[in-house]
Amino acid sequence: MSFHMSPEEFLRQSQAVMQWIADYHDHRVTELPVLSQVESGEIRASLPPDPPQHGEDFATMLADFDQKILPGITHWQSPNFYAYFPTGVSGPSLLGEFLSAGLAIQGMLWTTSPACTDLEAHMMDWVVKLLDLPEHYLSPLSRPGSSGGGVIQDSASSASLCAILAARERATAGRFNEEGGDGRLVAYTSNQAHSSIEKDVKVAGIGRKNLRLIPVDEHAENFAMDPIALRDQMVADRAAGKVPFFVSATVGTTSSGAVDPLPEIGAICEEFGASGVKPWLHVDGAMMGTAAVCPEFRGIHRGLKLADSYLFNPHKWMLVNFDCTCMFVKDRAALVSALSVTPEYLRNSASDAGEVIDYRDWQVPLGRRFRALKLWFVLRHYGVEGLQFYIRRHVEAAAQFAGWVEADPHFELVTPRSLNLVCFRLKPRDIASDASEAGKLEDEPAVNARNEALMKELNASGQIYLSHTKLAGKYTLRLCVGQAQTEIEHVRKAWELIQTVGRGL
Amino acid sequence: MSFHMSPEEFLRQSQAVMQWIADYHDHRVTELPVLSQVESGEIRASLPPDPPQHGEDFATMLADFDQKILPGITHWQSPNFYAYFPTGVSGPSLLGEFLSAGLAIQGMLWTTSPACTDLEAHMMDWVVKLLDLPEHYLSPLSRPGSSGGGVIQDSASSASLCAILAARERATAGRFNEEGGDGRLVAYTSNQAHSSIEKDVKVAGIGRKNLRLIPVDEHAENFAMDPIALRDQMVADRAAGKVPFFVSATVGTTSSGAVDPLPEIGAICEEFGASGVKPWLHVDGAMMGTAAVCPEFRGIHRGLKLADSYLFNPHKWMLVNFDCTCMFVKDRAALVSALSVTPEYLRNSASDAGEVIDYRDWQVPLGRRFRALKLWFVLRHYGVEGLQFYIRRHVEAAAQFAGWVEADPHFELVTPRSLNLVCFRLKPRDIASDASEAGKLEDEPAVNARNEALMKELNASGQIYLSHTKLAGKYTLRLCVGQAQTEIEHVRKAWELIQTVGRGL
Repeated sequence: MSFHMSPEEFLRQSQAVMQWIADYHDHRVTELPVLSQVESGEIRASLPPDPPQHGEDFATMLADFDQKILPGITHWQSPNFYAYFPTGVSGPSLLGEFLSAGLAIQGMLWTTSPACTDLEAHMMDWVVKLLDLPEHYLSPLSRPGSSGGGVIQDSASSASLCAILAARERATAGRFNEEGGDGRLVAYTSNQAHSSIEKDVKVAGIGRKNLRLIPVDEHAENFAMDPIALRDQMVADRAAGKVPFFVSATVGTTSSGAVDPLPEIGAICEEFGASGVKPWLHVDGAMMGTAAVCPEFRGIHRGLKLADSYLFNPHKWMLVNFDCTCMFVKDRAALVSALSVTPEYLRNSASDAGEVIDYRDWQVPLGRRFRALKLWFVLRHYGVEGLQFYIRRHVEAAAQFAGWVEADPHFELVTPRSLNLVCFRLKPRDIASDASEAGKLEDEPAVNARNEALMKELNASGQIYLSHTKLAGKYTLRLCVGQAQTEIEHVRKAWELIQTVGRGL
Repeated sequence: MSFHMSPEEFLRQSQAVMQWIADYHDHRVTELPVLSQVESGEIRASLPPDPPQHGEDFATMLADFDQKILPGITHWQSPNFYAYFPTGVSGPSLLGEFLSAGLAIQGMLWTTSPACTDLEAHMMDWVVKLLDLPEHYLSPLSRPGSSGGGVIQDSASSASLCAILAARERATAGRFNEEGGDGRLVAYTSNQAHSSIEKDVKVAGIGRKNLRLIPVDEHAENFAMDPIALRDQMVADRAAGKVPFFVSATVGTTSSGAVDPLPEIGAICEEFGASGVKPWLHVDGAMMGTAAVCPEFRGIHRGLKLADSYLFNPHKWMLVNFDCTCMFVKDRAALVSALSVTPEYLRNSASDAGEVIDYRDWQVPLGRRFRALKLWFVLRHYGVEGLQFYIRRHVEAAAQFAGWVEADPHFELVTPRSLNLVCFRLKPRDIASDASEAGKLEDEPAVNARNEALMKELNASGQIYLSHTKLAGKYTLRLCVGQAQTEIEHVRKAWELIQTVGRGL
């Protein structure tokens, strides 16, 4: 019977695993089809139906991983992956993740590993400085008397949920936690906001009908929230006896990278706060928040000082392994009071003294990993200037791609490029059969069908992977430049493929 | 300026990191004080206030980790750690975690990496067989026509929240998601249940006042839920126009390892279902569920077939790194319909065809890591018999410890031992000053104070780490045997220390 792996065996096998990872990133990932080509059921059919009775050899497992699992992987780390948003990875991040796994501690309370909490709080302060975020998000150690602070959550969905919970309790003076809702609270976001906001609103018991999807300005503002429509809706809701309690604005929407006008939205929240419950302004910086490492892109955060909470995902565009969502709050007491429950078995003298952070009270789960390590290593390995170089390179590649799209008579940008995200499509075709029909264009359903066919053919080729959205009814391809290894040559080759396939349709 | 780490540099540095991890588990973790001795603020004072402008050398970072971070770690992997619950780790689990980090994929949709979803579904079926759980938790591939299935969540808190959300929607035919609550839904758990249930009830907008903490039988049933009290409360609530919609039972409570009587609780839920809304029965197997790998301990799950959902944490007592909570549902459609939101940018042909699992609809976050890998490796490395050997060894060590406590005139068990968890304390002292007071005992506050002093002195010694609870007002020390490297000799030494310190108080 096999039992624990000996330290010698662990060292031997980990060397094989490290070599596998190095080879994967060095060359294998670029040779494999980006989108997995397996069929549903194929992988499971290759696995035994029951767990083994006797222990097996690790070398066999690693070989199985390579032969049975790898074909079922869609390669998010391929330099030819342009779908959704990128998922961060880098050498220093991996090494931090490994050490965190090796320590295998729980960071739920300060006392259960003070370094886990303290390094996290410190990294959150570093990030405030790195992105030049408002000072009130700093912890008291960096800004004496500060009532704010930051925390690492697993995902933007979870962090937004916590923002809603804090907002819910602030608006009801804690009654929602005690009694549940009465159907009066209303939340607001744009119709381009991430679906996690709708999911979170449902989870928190607000009710989907109490979420207002505010229209966007489809042209002038690149699908950003229309603040006049927001204010009108809030006025109407308040007049109807409802309580506007939460507004979620986005800095870089999933579909098109739109940046909602924070100064105007923040002013509306202030205005409402002056005459009743102040709506909690939450800002979702998802992927694009990272761009603020570069001073020239910090305009995306204009007005952010008006926000009660802010998040962005270093696990997207900042080379940190998933999961690592940085969430900041102006008033940490509002968050903690919404989420704190203290049974006897979690009491301890450090917590009772009130002098430490217990991060379990900043999130829904109790348990938590030591996620600050990988962020610490990434920030130190690259330094501020390394991260700036990295971000600028991707934005420049996206800008070049957008230029090529604009210069091609068969293609068009659906919206102006937003930093590293380009939304484009095949243009409506001229379908005039003779001179009398000059200028007659293909109808929109036909254009959409051609663009859907284009995306499917590109993805099925395995050479690149793109995802799509719909903008004002237009089926739109999204090219998001954000993978660690993506260089301008990859983007150029992607464009050549898109041109070739597109022209054939 | 430094930029990406080269493959060669990654290999070199990962070797140093692997050596660090091997040394840590091999000997360093046993030499360090179990409970970190740092003061609040100490670690942060050793770190620069700002992120570095220029990249730094990894060797410096690793040295800083060792010198600045390690003193702030409470060593959950020490064989002398007996507090809370254990946190799993093992060689095969670490290697699986490393590969998962290296792949850095997102498993939110089947199509974004089919292997991530398919291996997870397959491992959940393996676990059903491993623990001999009810067949209706199997996926359709293992049990044709099954409406059930399993999923890996990050924590029991999150999984219980999802169970509440599914229950909430089933009880209201989906209205809660649409409109929010009306204050009528009522949830039930014992007053010994984990605090995460109260937290989840609040998060889901049910309201704490609508959570009934059912009394326990403090003697005969070892602090397990009293089913008669449960039924009485449910009858009273229904008579008052409330809707009993959710009952959470525990298999191995945090405080004392109590096992709620599932057959009786399940029958009550059935009875209520026959005449109105059927309450969703959720079972929290947290740490102790793992014991069911051994046939002789499967009695803890008697009646589990009546449960709508069940969870346990391989990341506690089954050698899998955090996070890995296995959650099973009898009716996956109830869970998915409570959590599904599909915007255009997440639509894809595999999902649209309805033939695959998209695990994002089984949890609150959108993003998800490839967590099945580490579970796969652990099950294969140890095999069923290896895990059985492991669990039996811990239970036997706890049984020996309980025997020593009982044999010592200064100590007593506060409740009977439950598998690997022993609840004990210093007995009330005879404080008779002369013969006329014979049998006069120290009062309870004084006994509690001595036990609290005992725990603090033990933990401050750095030699072992215990946590406490209160049971029927008694300050109780908990000794939980569950760390990977804990052997009977460690437990024996712990007992000798407890005896020595305890007798001095």
